[in-house]
Amino acid sequence: MQRPGFDSEHLMFRESYRAFLQQEVQPYKQAWRKAGIVPREMFQKMGALGFLLVWADEAHGGLGLWDFRYQQIMIEEDNRLGEVGFYHTLHSRLVAPYLQHFGSAQQQARYLPACARGDSILAIAMTEPDAGSDLAGMKTRAVEHADHWLLNGAKTYISNGINADVLLVAAKTSADNPRQIGLFLLERGMPGFERGRQLEKMGLHAQDTCELFFTDVRVPKDNVLGDVTQGLNYLKTSLVEERLISAVGSLANAQGGFELTRDYVRQRKAFGRPIAEFQNTRFKLAELAAELEVAQVYVDHCVTQHNAGELSAQSAAKAKLVTSELESRVMDTGVQLHGGAGYMQEYEICQRFLDARVSRIFAGSSEIMKEIIARAVLGHA
Amino acid sequence: MQRPGFDSEHLMFRESYRAFLQQEVQPYKQAWRKAGIVPREMFQKMGALGFLLVWADEAHGGLGLWDFRYQQIMIEEDNRLGEVGFYHTLHSRLVAPYLQHFGSAQQQARYLPACARGDSILAIAMTEPDAGSDLAGMKTRAVEHADHWLLNGAKTYISNGINADVLLVAAKTSADNPRQIGLFLLERGMPGFERGRQLEKMGLHAQDTCELFFTDVRVPKDNVLGDVTQGLNYLKTSLVEERLISAVGSLANAQGGFELTRDYVRQRKAFGRPIAEFQNTRFKLAELAAELEVAQVYVDHCVTQHNAGELSAQSAAKAKLVTSELESRVMDTGVQLHGGAGYMQEYEICQRFLDARVSRIFAGSSEIMKEIIARAVLGHA
Amino acid sequence: MQRPGFDSEHLMFRESYRAFLQQEVQPYKQAWRKAGIVPREMFQKMGALGFLLVWADEAHGGLGLWDFRYQQIMIEEDNRLGEVGFYHTLHSRLVAPYLQHFGSAQQQARYLPACARGDSILAIAMTEPDAGSDLAGMKTRAVEHADHWLLNGAKTYISNGINADVLLVAAKTSADNPRQIGLFLLERGMPGFERGRQLEKMGLHAQDTCELFFTDVRVPKDNVLGDVTQGLNYLKTSLVEERLISAVGSLANAQGGFELTRDYVRQRKAFGRPIAEFQNTRFKLAELAAELEVAQVYVDHCVTQHNAGELSAQSAAKAKLVTSELESRVMDTGVQLHGGAGYMQEYEICQRFLDARVSRIFAGSSEIMKEIIARAVLGHA
Amino acid sequence: MQRPGFDSEHLMFRESYRAFLQQEVQPYKQAWRKAGIVPREMFQKMGALGFLLVWADEAHGGLGLWDFRYQQIMIEEDNRLGEVGFYHTLHSRLVAPYLQHFGSAQQQARYLPACARGDSILAIAMTEPDAGSDLAGMKTRAVEHADHWLLNGAKTYISNGINADVLLVAAKTSADNPRQIGLFLLERGMPGFERGRQLEKMGLHAQDTCELFFTDVRVPKDNVLGDVTQGLNYLKTSLVEERLISAVGSLANAQGGFELTRDYVRQRKAFGRPIAEFQNTRFKLAELAAELEVAQVYVDHCVTQHNAGELSAQSAAKAKLVTSELESRVMDTGVQLHGGAGYMQEYEICQRFLDARVSRIFAGSSEIMKEIIARAVLGHA
Repeated sequence: MQRPGFDSEHLMFRESYRAFLQQEVQPYKQAWRKAGIVPREMFQKMGALGFLLVWADEAHGGLGLWDFRYQQIMIEEDNRLGEVGFYHTLHSRLVAPYLQHFGSAQQQARYLPACARGDSILAIAMTEPDAGSDLAGMKTRAVEHADHWLLNGAKTYISNGINADVLLVAAKTSADNPRQIGLFLLERGMPGFERGRQLEKMGLHAQDTCELFFTDVRVPKDNVLGDVTQGLNYLKTSLVEERLISAVGSLANAQGGFELTRDYVRQRKAFGRPIAEFQNTRFKLAELAAELEVAQVYVDHCVTQHNAGELSAQSAAKAKLVTSELESRVMDTGVQLHGGAGYMQEYEICQRFLDARVSRIFAGSSEIMKEIIARAVLGHA
Repeated sequence: MQRPGFDSEHLMFRESYRAFLQQEVQPYKQAWRKAGIVPREMFQKMGALGFLLVWADEAHGGLGLWDFRYQQIMIEEDNRLGEVGFYHTLHSRLVAPYLQHFGSAQQQARYLPACARGDSILAIAMTEPDAGSDLAGMKTRAVEHADHWLLNGAKTYISNGINADVLLVAAKTSADNPRQIGLFLLERGMPGFERGRQLEKMGLHAQDTCELFFTDVRVPKDNVLGDVTQGLNYLKTSLVEERLISAVGSLANAQGGFELTRDYVRQRKAFGRPIAEFQNTRFKLAELAAELEVAQVYVDHCVTQHNAGELSAQSAAKAKLVTSELESRVMDTGVQLHGGAGYMQEYEICQRFLDARVSRIFAGSSEIMKEIIARAVLGHA
Repeated sequence: MQRPGFDSEHLMFRESYRAFLQQEVQPYKQAWRKAGIVPREMFQKMGALGFLLVWADEAHGGLGLWDFRYQQIMIEEDNRLGEVGFYHTLHSRLVAPYLQHFGSAQQQARYLPACARGDSILAIAMTEPDAGSDLAGMKTRAVEHADHWLLNGAKTYISNGINADVLLVAAKTSADNPRQIGLFLLERGMPGFERGRQLEKMGLHAQDTCELFFTDVRVPKDNVLGDVTQGLNYLKTSLVEERLISAVGSLANAQGGFELTRDYVRQRKAFGRPIAEFQNTRFKLAELAAELEVAQVYVDHCVTQHNAGELSAQSAAKAKLVTSELESRVMDTGVQLHGGAGYMQEYEICQRFLDARVSRIFAGSSEIMKEIIARAVLGHA
Repeated sequence: MQRPGFDSEHLMFRESYRAFLQQEVQPYKQAWRKAGIVPREMFQKMGALGFLLVWADEAHGGLGLWDFRYQQIMIEEDNRLGEVGFYHTLHSRLVAPYLQHFGSAQQQARYLPACARGDSILAIAMTEPDAGSDLAGMKTRAVEHADHWLLNGAKTYISNGINADVLLVAAKTSADNPRQIGLFLLERGMPGFERGRQLEKMGLHAQDTCELFFTDVRVPKDNVLGDVTQGLNYLKTSLVEERLISAVGSLANAQGGFELTRDYVRQRKAFGRPIAEFQNTRFKLAELAAELEVAQVYVDHCVTQHNAGELSAQSAAKAKLVTSELESRVMDTGVQLHGGAGYMQEYEICQRFLDARVSRIFAGSSEIMKEIIARAVLGHA
């Protein structure tokens, strides 16, 4: 089925980005998986070609392309290839926009151009070891002093955690109100800010994920983002986009896993004929093909709505829920149809299977998505 | 989520048709279910208001509205109400178009105006007791004579079978070639044409379904539709639209079943609080709400494609497969959340559950849909 | 797989009961489905052969066979045949044991022999229109007077409701304590006791199910069962057995549905060969065959445990949950593999599908079973 | 639920083996996972305690315990701990029995005592890169010469492949008959026998798995196992036991994964209360608890049957199918309920998830199991 809604400029952008991936990523990505991290220079290479912060004003080094389809194209191309290994979407579209929306002009000038060039890498730190996705349960605290805030606490599961130069850290700013949270811009090298060991994940092996520790870190007041009491509200503004990003990625990974499974069953034989001729194979792939096309039309529709500023929280939650569940089913079937090869890391389906499993957990688990949808359908419990 | 793609004329049409259903159908539909049939006059009432063959030329009594959205609106409104009891879509959009596409000018003039008025009711007879959906396996045969064809055989599962005045009957027209099939216009009262007993179905109780028997029926050559060797090709032309009709109906029934379940769990209490407050209820309905919205966007997209003449066979198959499977899941969950009430025919969810079960079987079973999709994805086995 | 645990006496009993079903039930069961009820004489025929209250002392007209396998055999044979149409298990094994366990010697002498002969038919009335399975929410109340209790209220979904002569009715016996419930033996003809219309169910059409109304019914104190404050505790004692009965029945119905589907696909052809040769058919039936055998071994194990007085509430709940869910899956697949025939009431698979849907709802819904198991696994929420 | 069928000797054996695992395996298993292999000495430690080839005659260094429950106990204890890291079951119960059943007295004397001591480690080589589990498609060939067979070919996915000293290798022994296969005992150091690189698997990281290459390997005739034309028949004799071993392991791994998830949700909080109190958590775990108990009773029943020599091929296939599918569902739910932690390799649920995924693929995939069951139910296609 054709996908309406992409015009020739989008197609050119897709070609150009795909060429970049073929040349600069494809030859190295297995090495990055082994290394557990991507060289920092990759951000600079990408920045040099204009692929970071494409939405930013030209004054800040961007292309002024707020149109979400450009980000969608990059996420899709990344996932068609398999894990590209570095989480530039987090940098460009999940963290940097906070600076744009809530940062002062000085902060924007200080950070955005370096981010667009790839000289400065971004991360965000919300999750804590004992609180999970329940922000009100966080223990990291910031206490106000004359010209700085004193930050103490710890964070975990921080993507880009090793590579990051600037990290947006959420901390409680009130002893009384557990829902009063501020966002602080921590920078590499601040005394008292330590990174823990890199976490060994099930998949997504090229992404650096780690813990962070803050011991009496003095954060200058210039490094507070916006109103120090409004952190929760700031974070909420990005949830719809974060889930849409997740949905686009899950679906593209699923599509990639489907295609390589389709190709595999065509050439792989069992009992004298291609697996693709067995009805079980055919029906399993037919079911997935149907779900993939249905989901793609929905995600594209959500992107259109998002560009119009009309994507609701519940629709974004539906998109994330449906695509991440589908992604897991596609990969599980893909592994199964690969037989023993599916269990070997050298086969791409194995890597995609491992990468996919996090999608139902991060950026709001499937259970959280269901809560959001249920509230829209039935009201609060 | 808003549904783009319907303009004010569609909304007016929807209002008008909904009013008709409220007035002329809603008060009687349970009685029709008991009777197992709808009074023939219902077709005439509907015809008088212009709701039959809306696509037909004004010269033939229609409104000239080929735009499939008008049919979609009627199917949706029917299903929001629950089984309306008479299968006017079969009459208007599945059978009558054969006359338009393949009939002679005389045939069109003879049949279409009466059909648009509801004076003449249509049915189509393909399925046979021993052949199922495998048309090449049919046993009904027509043998050519000087000025007529002599028809012998039997058909089963004929919707509108009792009410029908004109029936499009498929029969083999070659002793040698099992795939050479012709379509014949049988009329009420032709000698040798008998209707069997009405079949007692699991649901869809207001629809008359029966067997047909043909014993040396002399069918005048004027009653042959188009080329007597091209029946299979004629039948194929309607498959995409038939599946789209099925998908639109399944989804609308599912949406109706979902809404009444949602309302039921809100007011029904267990252990002192509404069932709607139990997390199990909430998650089950959230999953379905997500699937329903995703499917609706896809079906609307298919309708847009169909209006542009671009809906592929595989996309229509995907739409039917996904919506009919979803319909069954929605009804099963709806019955379960109704508890004991869900097992009682007086509750609408019970009726919808029973009606829904046929959707995965008729108009090409889910297995057939998977074959079609698999062929598009993997080629022939 | 062989089923150990049945010896030659059980086999003889099975043969004998099967012969009874073949002769006295099989020829009439479709007529009973149409009538919506079984003639009262059927209970007497069954009683004359010793098949009612087999567990009762010989003094009370029974055979003294507490061994649950005899009841299991009868339930299995009933379900192999399809719905036998009269709910003698309810009479013999769900209601009569209350008299044995909690009734006075006089009550036992008054009721049990007539029940064993089939002259007096039993039912139990717990569920209410607005309370469902939440007994604490019931509204039926009994108020004590000098020599009687005055009963007011209503009950619904009462199996054997029309045929029953003696009904065990639960009612609150305290204005203050919502969990103080007594059990009363209502008899046919007591002034103020009315039966409502027979309820039209989705399936189980031969079973009479109705509502009951009590308006100032004077229940003599002799008709109180045991301690008038201990009804809830009495009811709890039967739950394990009730769920085991349900599990045995679900599994036997599933097995019956499986076998007729297996036979159907062997003889039914599509596209020139038996449906049984398509891999989709084979895999679907293989999955069900595996689940059926696994469940059968478990149920037999539960029966052994029950006979030893060691079947836990959670194991009984597991048996009911697993078998009733499996039963629905078997029937759904069976209908699908029957194609159009599966949607026709004249095909047994259609009837079994309709009968099966109640199993996940009655005798404690699947949700209640999960609560019971969860409490055993995780403690109270 | 208690598990009948284990007497005090079994319990003592279980205690003793568990103590061995606690002392000799638990402290090292993570190191083995990192190393990708278990030290050869582990086999010797185990042999010294009598835990290898427990079934072998005392003359051959065993305990004479053919009773499968001893092996079941070891597999269960291994899996309760998580991956123990060395595949002694393959050595003891999958390969060594071929020597017992089909080997000459000399071969038994030459190999079995060393195997029982753990001095000599066994493996079996059937699967080939291009043939998968289709033995008739293998390309490895042995050509007879005067006093030896000349072996050429390659094998893959060989468990214990690096550690093995003696490998039972399947090869075609006829140019004409693709189903004529012989089994050859290859020994470490034979010229022309090379091991490929160790394969990086999705999980089971402590097990050494590799490819094997044979280039003009001269295999003395003394190293032919039994009749050189009967390899396929020999291999078939072990299939029932192999699948039972697989089922026992899958179920024990599932049980282990269930228990650690149950413990995790009890202590882990979200939104201020333990996850164990959310109905979604409770229902998910209740469903799994039911399936686990049902499967355990079945597997124990199969073991009883196997000990009596009565376990059928279809029942073994059912056991493997049901338990391996359940194992995957348990792990998937376990990962999900662990949230972000579930995606981290340091959490045991993550390792179990990765280990589990192979169970539906190896020792005959789920698709093969369905074929076997389908043949028993429906005959050949």
